[in-house]
Amino acid sequence: MPPKVLICSTIVWAHEEVKSLLGNIADIVHVDSPNRAAFLSEFKKGGKYEGTVGIYRENDSAKTLGVFDKELINGLPSSVRWIAHNGAGYDPVDVHACIAKGIYLSNTPGAVDDATATTALYLLISTLRQYSSAERSLRALKWKPAGLNTISHDVTGRTLAILGLGGIGLRLAELVQSFPMRVIYHSRKRNLQAPSYCQYFPNVEEMLAQADVLSIHVPLRQETVGLVGEKLIRALKPSAIIINTARGKVIDEEALIRALEDGHLAAAGLDVYPNEPEVNPRFLEFPQVTLLPHMGTENQDSQKKMEVRALTNLRDFLTTGQGKDLVLEYKQNPAAVSKN
Amino acid sequence: MPPKVLICSTIVWAHEEVKSLLGNIADIVHVDSPNRAAFLSEFKKGGKYEGTVGIYRENDSAKTLGVFDKELINGLPSSVRWIAHNGAGYDPVDVHACIAKGIYLSNTPGAVDDATATTALYLLISTLRQYSSAERSLRALKWKPAGLNTISHDVTGRTLAILGLGGIGLRLAELVQSFPMRVIYHSRKRNLQAPSYCQYFPNVEEMLAQADVLSIHVPLRQETVGLVGEKLIRALKPSAIIINTARGKVIDEEALIRALEDGHLAAAGLDVYPNEPEVNPRFLEFPQVTLLPHMGTENQDSQKKMEVRALTNLRDFLTTGQGKDLVLEYKQNPAAVSKN
Repeated sequence: MPPKVLICSTIVWAHEEVKSLLGNIADIVHVDSPNRAAFLSEFKKGGKYEGTVGIYRENDSAKTLGVFDKELINGLPSSVRWIAHNGAGYDPVDVHACIAKGIYLSNTPGAVDDATATTALYLLISTLRQYSSAERSLRALKWKPAGLNTISHDVTGRTLAILGLGGIGLRLAELVQSFPMRVIYHSRKRNLQAPSYCQYFPNVEEMLAQADVLSIHVPLRQETVGLVGEKLIRALKPSAIIINTARGKVIDEEALIRALEDGHLAAAGLDVYPNEPEVNPRFLEFPQVTLLPHMGTENQDSQKKMEVRALTNLRDFLTTGQGKDLVLEYKQNPAAVSKN
Repeated sequence: MPPKVLICSTIVWAHEEVKSLLGNIADIVHVDSPNRAAFLSEFKKGGKYEGTVGIYRENDSAKTLGVFDKELINGLPSSVRWIAHNGAGYDPVDVHACIAKGIYLSNTPGAVDDATATTALYLLISTLRQYSSAERSLRALKWKPAGLNTISHDVTGRTLAILGLGGIGLRLAELVQSFPMRVIYHSRKRNLQAPSYCQYFPNVEEMLAQADVLSIHVPLRQETVGLVGEKLIRALKPSAIIINTARGKVIDEEALIRALEDGHLAAAGLDVYPNEPEVNPRFLEFPQVTLLPHMGTENQDSQKKMEVRALTNLRDFLTTGQGKDLVLEYKQNPAAVSKN
């Protein structure tokens, strides 16, 4: 019997690739359990999922199974060795529970960089030029809002601060070079892959004091919850703009709303929110805000790339014992890997 | 007496520059005539505008004076030698009437390139990724529209066709290089300044057949009215997108609406309309369309650059007898210049 692989979320684009990557080496089972209890019970002897080795998941599986929290992970049998998450942010999977249980976890880092950075660029243009507000005015049959040019600016020549210069931040830095914008960044440490046009600031507040636009690209972890709060927001110079395509909870939402209310921030461009799909209705009151419903990678080209990359991690594990995109916690902790 | 210069439109940003460029060499008069008749009557002997040599104008002067059509130009006295128009498109000034009357006309070409190309880039991202539609869905408290990823695409790797590779088209070609997009173009003749990544198509329809996105950058002239009509729109491959930041009348609006209705075009991004500020309400019915109220250069940085450039043309004429931005019709017709 080939090893069993569960497809926990609908494959939307990579139908051919499921077959070409896994068809000859795995027993592919599409999960159809209506809820978590039904899902976990099928791993028992004689169940549909008995003996499963690898799991492919995407966030839409949360609708029936909930997120892959400690309870769910601990309910999996010891046969499960690899979870291939489709997405860059893997906060919906409890990585520590995976490590404790001896399950590898992979994400799809590079596949999301271009699409997410393009979303950040869109929000950056929209907020600097105030185009979301302009379109709403036209659609309300009022043509151009009065005085918009007094709050709008050219992109070219402005300073972009990137918080977290990983793959997405680097891609955004590349995209804005064509204007150019000046690019400054802060990460826990200097990114040795960063091109020379990215200027590193070891001190985050010194960086923020020079920024016209702050774009957030840190993952959601315990230590990044509320990271962009009152202190960092007020360290920005007046009339700065915040763009968030990372995770909603990285911003202290109340501090952001205060800064929009009192005018310290000129605008904000948000693709992510703390409790998606809920959006704090107070954001709808600010004309200067651009709001997208988590569209970061929402297009067929990037979504297919992501599906293929997640499936490739499963394939590589089955054929070589290791997938390329093992998440950071394993790479930083050789014990977690050897334990597997 | 220094030569008299009329400021026909409000200077919004370049207050200091009016003084520094013209203060010492001209008698600056701010036009306050409530209508065209009052305006023209002040050029008579003893009138406020008697002896005027140069005129600065911008489109907002049309509110009181109307456009600078043949009647208005012919009503100006022979003392008037230079009209400095603030804007790249100078279709609101009758250039042939100017030539016949021996008046030079300048525009502000380079000053608009960056801001207008950025607007085209914004419309390109918005339509390829369907972000205008996505934001309206969120603001209607419906989060993400269903099935949006089936009609949205990455920008990277798509083919951009530029119709008219002048300053704005060239700047757009530069901006999309960071993705990159493939750039193809058609102009009346090959642009010898074009970088090697811009591929010239002498045949416009052959270019259109390869385009994912068509961006229009031709000026409005008699021969470009309705240029993008049924024939050229249908020469685009199915599911192409049209972006227009040039002039509304360059597109045959009815042909565009038909192609959106029958799905030949996937989307359109429009910043300009045939009868601004009116917008054909049928456009509001298409969810896949992004509509801006002529925001091309609408921000303080570019608008100041444009004001300074127009004023500099007047200054240069007064001090050297020639401004840099004499419009094309003079450059193509040495007789028109020497006549002056």
